[in-house]
Amino acid sequence: MRTHKLGIIMNGVTGRMGTNQHLVRSILAIRKQGGVKIGTDETIIPDPILVGRNPNKLKALSEQHGVEDYTTDLDAALSDADYPVYFDALSTNLRVVNVRKAIAAGKHVYAEKPTATNLGDAMTLYKEARAAGVKHGVVQDKLWLPGLLKLEFLLDSGFFGRILSVRGEFGYFVFDGISQPAQRPSWNYRQEDGGGIFFDMFSHWRYVIDHLFGKVKRLVALGAIHIPERADEQGRPYRATAEDAAYAIFETDQGVPVQFNSSWCTRVRRDDLLSVQVDGMKGTAVAGLRRCWVQPEACTPKPVWNPDVEPKLDYYADWGEVPSNVEYDNAFKVQWELFLRHVVQDTPFPWSLLEGAKGVQLAELGLKSWQQRTWVDVPELA
Amino acid sequence: MRTHKLGIIMNGVTGRMGTNQHLVRSILAIRKQGGVKIGTDETIIPDPILVGRNPNKLKALSEQHGVEDYTTDLDAALSDADYPVYFDALSTNLRVVNVRKAIAAGKHVYAEKPTATNLGDAMTLYKEARAAGVKHGVVQDKLWLPGLLKLEFLLDSGFFGRILSVRGEFGYFVFDGISQPAQRPSWNYRQEDGGGIFFDMFSHWRYVIDHLFGKVKRLVALGAIHIPERADEQGRPYRATAEDAAYAIFETDQGVPVQFNSSWCTRVRRDDLLSVQVDGMKGTAVAGLRRCWVQPEACTPKPVWNPDVEPKLDYYADWGEVPSNVEYDNAFKVQWELFLRHVVQDTPFPWSLLEGAKGVQLAELGLKSWQQRTWVDVPELA
Amino acid sequence: MRTHKLGIIMNGVTGRMGTNQHLVRSILAIRKQGGVKIGTDETIIPDPILVGRNPNKLKALSEQHGVEDYTTDLDAALSDADYPVYFDALSTNLRVVNVRKAIAAGKHVYAEKPTATNLGDAMTLYKEARAAGVKHGVVQDKLWLPGLLKLEFLLDSGFFGRILSVRGEFGYFVFDGISQPAQRPSWNYRQEDGGGIFFDMFSHWRYVIDHLFGKVKRLVALGAIHIPERADEQGRPYRATAEDAAYAIFETDQGVPVQFNSSWCTRVRRDDLLSVQVDGMKGTAVAGLRRCWVQPEACTPKPVWNPDVEPKLDYYADWGEVPSNVEYDNAFKVQWELFLRHVVQDTPFPWSLLEGAKGVQLAELGLKSWQQRTWVDVPELA
Amino acid sequence: MRTHKLGIIMNGVTGRMGTNQHLVRSILAIRKQGGVKIGTDETIIPDPILVGRNPNKLKALSEQHGVEDYTTDLDAALSDADYPVYFDALSTNLRVVNVRKAIAAGKHVYAEKPTATNLGDAMTLYKEARAAGVKHGVVQDKLWLPGLLKLEFLLDSGFFGRILSVRGEFGYFVFDGISQPAQRPSWNYRQEDGGGIFFDMFSHWRYVIDHLFGKVKRLVALGAIHIPERADEQGRPYRATAEDAAYAIFETDQGVPVQFNSSWCTRVRRDDLLSVQVDGMKGTAVAGLRRCWVQPEACTPKPVWNPDVEPKLDYYADWGEVPSNVEYDNAFKVQWELFLRHVVQDTPFPWSLLEGAKGVQLAELGLKSWQQRTWVDVPELA
Repeated sequence: MRTHKLGIIMNGVTGRMGTNQHLVRSILAIRKQGGVKIGTDETIIPDPILVGRNPNKLKALSEQHGVEDYTTDLDAALSDADYPVYFDALSTNLRVVNVRKAIAAGKHVYAEKPTATNLGDAMTLYKEARAAGVKHGVVQDKLWLPGLLKLEFLLDSGFFGRILSVRGEFGYFVFDGISQPAQRPSWNYRQEDGGGIFFDMFSHWRYVIDHLFGKVKRLVALGAIHIPERADEQGRPYRATAEDAAYAIFETDQGVPVQFNSSWCTRVRRDDLLSVQVDGMKGTAVAGLRRCWVQPEACTPKPVWNPDVEPKLDYYADWGEVPSNVEYDNAFKVQWELFLRHVVQDTPFPWSLLEGAKGVQLAELGLKSWQQRTWVDVPELA
Repeated sequence: MRTHKLGIIMNGVTGRMGTNQHLVRSILAIRKQGGVKIGTDETIIPDPILVGRNPNKLKALSEQHGVEDYTTDLDAALSDADYPVYFDALSTNLRVVNVRKAIAAGKHVYAEKPTATNLGDAMTLYKEARAAGVKHGVVQDKLWLPGLLKLEFLLDSGFFGRILSVRGEFGYFVFDGISQPAQRPSWNYRQEDGGGIFFDMFSHWRYVIDHLFGKVKRLVALGAIHIPERADEQGRPYRATAEDAAYAIFETDQGVPVQFNSSWCTRVRRDDLLSVQVDGMKGTAVAGLRRCWVQPEACTPKPVWNPDVEPKLDYYADWGEVPSNVEYDNAFKVQWELFLRHVVQDTPFPWSLLEGAKGVQLAELGLKSWQQRTWVDVPELA
Repeated sequence: MRTHKLGIIMNGVTGRMGTNQHLVRSILAIRKQGGVKIGTDETIIPDPILVGRNPNKLKALSEQHGVEDYTTDLDAALSDADYPVYFDALSTNLRVVNVRKAIAAGKHVYAEKPTATNLGDAMTLYKEARAAGVKHGVVQDKLWLPGLLKLEFLLDSGFFGRILSVRGEFGYFVFDGISQPAQRPSWNYRQEDGGGIFFDMFSHWRYVIDHLFGKVKRLVALGAIHIPERADEQGRPYRATAEDAAYAIFETDQGVPVQFNSSWCTRVRRDDLLSVQVDGMKGTAVAGLRRCWVQPEACTPKPVWNPDVEPKLDYYADWGEVPSNVEYDNAFKVQWELFLRHVVQDTPFPWSLLEGAKGVQLAELGLKSWQQRTWVDVPELA
Repeated sequence: MRTHKLGIIMNGVTGRMGTNQHLVRSILAIRKQGGVKIGTDETIIPDPILVGRNPNKLKALSEQHGVEDYTTDLDAALSDADYPVYFDALSTNLRVVNVRKAIAAGKHVYAEKPTATNLGDAMTLYKEARAAGVKHGVVQDKLWLPGLLKLEFLLDSGFFGRILSVRGEFGYFVFDGISQPAQRPSWNYRQEDGGGIFFDMFSHWRYVIDHLFGKVKRLVALGAIHIPERADEQGRPYRATAEDAAYAIFETDQGVPVQFNSSWCTRVRRDDLLSVQVDGMKGTAVAGLRRCWVQPEACTPKPVWNPDVEPKLDYYADWGEVPSNVEYDNAFKVQWELFLRHVVQDTPFPWSLLEGAKGVQLAELGLKSWQQRTWVDVPELA
C-alpha cells in the first residue's frame, strides 16, 4: 500500500462554510474513509493544518474535530515543506494577498469563489500561478449538485433534442433582521464589504452555464436593492448598499437564451431554492438542488387557453422524476478528491484560477450592465 | 320597464375567439340573462348583426346560435342607423381599415387587441375616433380574470406591504404541426401575417402592468424563433418568421422590476398557463388564471441553503389559497357590459383606443429592444 | 475570560416545578452551556445551594443532579455573603415570610408566582425590596412560550391590523382522585391551603394580557366548584373548597374584549391546553403553547349560514402555520438568564415584584367579581 | 282517506329565509310528500296563499314555485275563512301590528323570531292570542338541528352524568362590504332598523338553553361594535350602530354556567359555525350544526402541563363521532308539521308566543347588561 500524505494549509475555515463543507465534510470525511484511492494499492491522505487569526477559535475547532495542527502564523506554515498545498476560504477581500503569498512560496493553491473582487486581481492570481508552475483550482461545487448532475446526464443522453431555452430561479426570503433575525451575514448586503448577489451568485452561474449550456456570450442584468433597511447580527440597523436581487438574461454561443433570476427577497413557490428549467424540442426538465423532473415530448399535454372554466389540467401531474440511480457524494468533497488527484497524479483539473477569473468577470459585467442599463458582451480571457 | 335596444355590428366573429368569447359568452349571454340592468327599471338589450366575408359560415353561425341578422355587406350595415355600435374581431392587419370606416360612419367602435400592426396606425384610430366624437374601447379581458382580480384585491387590501418585484411566466408548448398538430393558427408564426408573440402578448402585458403595478417606464427584451420549421393547418411545412418567445424585464414608474417570460415553446411545471408572482415586504402571492395563493410574512419559512441533505421543506406547503368569495363572470362579458353602459349612459370607460395604442407601442418597443439589443424607454403618448 | 460566579439560594425546589423547570432546565442547563455569555469574554456562572426542610429529599436531589451544596438552615444560607441571590419556589402561603427574610438579609430576590395570597402582602414585598435597594423579579414564564412569542411577532409585524377581540381557553380535565388518580396536588382545590384557579391562573393572565393586548381595565368573572368531592394523594376523600373553573371577560384600556375561560373540569377539543385566538381586521391567529396558526384576510372564506346541508367548508383547512424560524429555549431559563444579567449588569428587568403584585390583584378581583356577581375595575397600583 | 286542507296566509316569504326555509323546504315540501300524516287514513294538506307588498315579486315567486294564490291585500286574506292560519316572516318591526290583526281576525298565528322589538309588545301578542283563544307558535328551528338533537339524545341517555358547564361559540367573519361584499344584509348592523346580534341570536339562545340545560336565571354580557365602518348592498358607506358581537355568561337554575360568544367578526377555527361544548362528569360532547363528537370518561386522556416539549397529544384524536342513526329532516319543516298537527289535532305545542317573548326578554336583558356593565336577573314572565 503506497500512501501519499499530502499536507494542506487550510486558511479561513473557522467560518460556517469553511468548517462544514471544506474541513468536516471534505477533508476530514476523506480521512475518515481512508483517503482518496487512486489505484489498487495507492491512496492520498490529506493532512490539514488550520490557519487563522483567532487562536481561541482555532483551538476550539481543533479540539472539536480532532485536528492536531493549527497556527496563527501563516508565513511559518507557507515556509513548511510538509504542506505543499494552500487552501483559501477567507472572506473575498483578503483572498488575493494570501493566495499570492502562497503562490510565491511555491504552493499549489485551491481557493473559494469568487477569487477576487475584480477581474484584474483574479487574472493576476491566474497568471502568477501559471508562471510559478504550481497547480491551481477554484471551488465550483454546483457542478456536483445531484440536481445538476441529473441535468448533465439528460444533456449527455440526448433527452432534450435541440435545446431551446433555459430558465433559472434562485433565491429565498432572507429576513431583514428587524422583524425576524436574518439567516445570512450582514456583510452580504454591504457593497463596501464585498457583498451583493452579483458577486455571490454570478460567479456560480458562469461555470454552470458554460459547462451545461454553452459559453456565455453576452448578458443584460437589472440589479435591485429591494430592502434598503436591515439590521445586523447584533440587531443594529444598517443601510444595505449592495444589491439583493438580480434579474438577468444571458445568451450563449449556442444561441440559447438563459433567463436567470437571483434574489434574496422572494418567497418560494417552486420545487427548490434553486430550480433550472431546460426546454428542448424533445423534452423539458426542471432540476432542483437534488431532484429533477422531466416531461418528454411523448407526455406533453396540449393545453388550450380558456380562462372561463376551472382548468382541467394539473400542470404538475405530467412530470416524471429522474431516479437517483447513483449515490451522490458531497459536492465539495468530490471536487476536493479531484484536486488532490490532480496534485499527486497530474490528472486533468479544468476548474482552474482562469475559470475562477471568468466568474469574477461575469459578476463585474452584471454590475456594469445594471448601472449602465445596457447589454454587455463577455470578452474572452487571454 | 325601460329597454334600450342597442344594435351592434359584429365583424369577424366567425373565428374561434370571436364566436366563443364575444358572440356566445358575451352578447348572447347578455341577451339570455335579460340584458344589462342599468337601473331598477332600465335595461340594455344588445341586438347583433353578424358581418363576414363567407356567407356559408355566417349562415351556419346564425342558425347555430339563433342570431337572425347577418350580412356580407359591411357598408350597408354601417349605413344602417339601427346599429350605432361597430365591433371588430378581424385579424389584426384588416382591423385599421375597417375600424376607420366605422368611425367615418359615426359608429361607436369596440375592437379586439392589438388595434393595429404599428403605433402610427393605432394612434390614427384613436385620433379619428376622438375627432368624430364617437365612443370607443379596446378589449382588455385579462383585467377581469379571476386570478388577476384576486391579485388586485390583495393589492387594494394592503396585503403585500411595499411591493418589491413581480415575475410573470406565460406560455405552453405549441406543437410544431409536424410531430403533432398545432393548437394555434399558423399565421401566429409568420411576421408577414402579423404574427409574433410580442404583438400577441405585450399588448396584454401593457395594461396588466400599468393597471396593477405602475406605468411601464422602460424595458429590455430578447425575442427568439425557437422553432423555425413548422407545418400549417394543412400539414404544409413553412418557415416561422415571427418570434415564438420573448424574455423581458420591465421597470415601472414605481421602481418595481417586472420580469416576464412569454413563450409558445415551453412545457408547464407551475400552477397555470399564466402565473404572476408578486413579492412584497409583508407577503407574496402567486396568481394563475383563476386561482391565487398567498404566503404572508407570518407563514414565511426560513430556508437555509444546505444542498447536502434532502430538503426538509415542501415549498408548496406554506401557501394558503385566496377563496372565491364572489362569483366571477366571463371576463369578456364583464367588459362588454361596461362598454354597453358607457355607450348608453356615458359611464366611465377608461379602456379606450388610446389604451389600445399603448399596447401596440409596447409590442413595437419590445421588437426594437430585441433587434437592437438595447434597453428602450416608453415615451408617453400625447 | 472574565467569569462572574453568582451564588443562588434555591428554596423550595424539591417540588415538581421547582426541580424540573428552575433547577434542572434553568440553573443546571445554564451551567452546562458554560454560563450566561454577557460579552465577548464575559460570563455569569450561577452557583446554587439547595434549601429545604426535608434533608432526605435534599440529599437525593443533590446526588441525582450533582449539586454539592444544600442545607436545611435557611438563616445560615441567608447570612452567607457568597450567595447574593434568593430564589423562592415554596408553596404560596410560605412565600411572604421567607422572601421578606431574604430582603432583610440584603439578598436580591426572585420568586415564583403568585407572590402572596393577598394584594397587601404582595405590595409589602415590593415596597420592602425597593426600600432595601435589592433587585427583584417574579417568574412570568408564559411570556416566553413559543406560541405566545409567535403571537407577539404577529402583533409587532402588524399582521392583525386593528385588534378586534381576544378569546382564551385554558384547561383540561383533572381527575377527581376517586375514579382515577388526580394529576395535580390536592391543595389546589382547597381554599384554606391557597388553592383555586383564580390565584393559580389569573396571576398569569394579568401579565399576558397587559403585555400583549393592553392593560386590563375591568373584568367580570364567574367561578365554580364543579367537582366538590375529590380524593387526595393518599386516596382520602376531601371536600373541594376552592374554585376549579373561572369564566371571565376582561376589557383592556385599548377597548379590546378578552374572553377567557380557565378550567380544570373540561375536556380538550382544540389545538392545545392553552389556546388564544386573536381576531383582527386583517387576520386572525390561534396560538397554542408552542404552535400558532393564522388566517389572513386574503384567505378568509365566506361562510353562508345554511344548516340544511352538510357544510362544504373544512374550517381548519384555511389556516397556515407560523414556522419556528428561531430556536425557542426553555421559557423559565430565558427569564432566569435575563434576571442573572439584571443582577450582574443592571440590564432592564421589568418583571418585578410590582408586576407580581398585579397578578395577585387580578386574582383577588376575580374572586370578588364572582362572589358579588359584579363587574370590578382594576385600580392602578401606586 | 280523510284529508284536512288547511289554508295558510304566508306573509313576508319573499325574503331569502322566508322563501327557502318556510315556503319551499317546509310548506311546499310537505305538499310534495303528500301532507302531514296524522293517522292511518288521515292527512293534513297545507294550502298557502302568499301575501306581500310588491306584486311583481309575488308573481315571480308564485310562478317559480307553482303557488297559485297570492295577494297584496292582507285584510282580504284575513277575512277569508278558507285560511284559518296566519304565518308571519316580515321584518321584525312590522311583525307586531300584523300578528295582532291576524289574532283579531281569529286566525291561528305562527311567527318568526324575534316576535317583537321589545318585551312589552311580545307579551301583548301572547296575551291577545290567549284571550282570543287562537293557537299560536314561534319558530325555534335550532331545536331540530341535527347537532343539537344529538346533544339532546346524549342528555336524555345520561351520557354526561352531572352537567358541569357549557360553552358556546357562534359566528363567522361577515365582510365589511368595503374590502369584500358582505354576506349579510346591512340592516343587521343598524340599531335603528332592528339590527344587532343580541336580538338576532339571544332569541335563539334562550330556548336552546332553557330546553337543554335548565332555565336561564341570570346573565352578564358585553356587546361590541367591532367594525363601525361598513358599506351596504349598493357599496355606500354607513356607520354601524348595532353591536356585531356579544360575549356572555349565563347561569341556569341548575347552577350550570353557560359561557356563550356570538360574533360576526371572528374567523372560524373550530368544527362548525356554531359549536356547543357540554362538559359532564362522565363525558364531554362538542356539537356543531349537524355533527357531534364525544369523549367519554373512559377515553379522557391525562394531559400534563409541559410546554417545554412538542405536545405528544393530538387533542382532536381522542374523540368519537355520534353517528346519524336517524334521518334528520329540515328543522323548519319538522316544527311546521308539529304546528299543523297542533292546529288540527290539538296536540301539545309548547313553542308558543310566550316562549317567543322569553327570547325577546333575553335579548333586551343582554343589551341592558352590556350598557350598565352589570349582571341581570331574568324574571319569570307571568
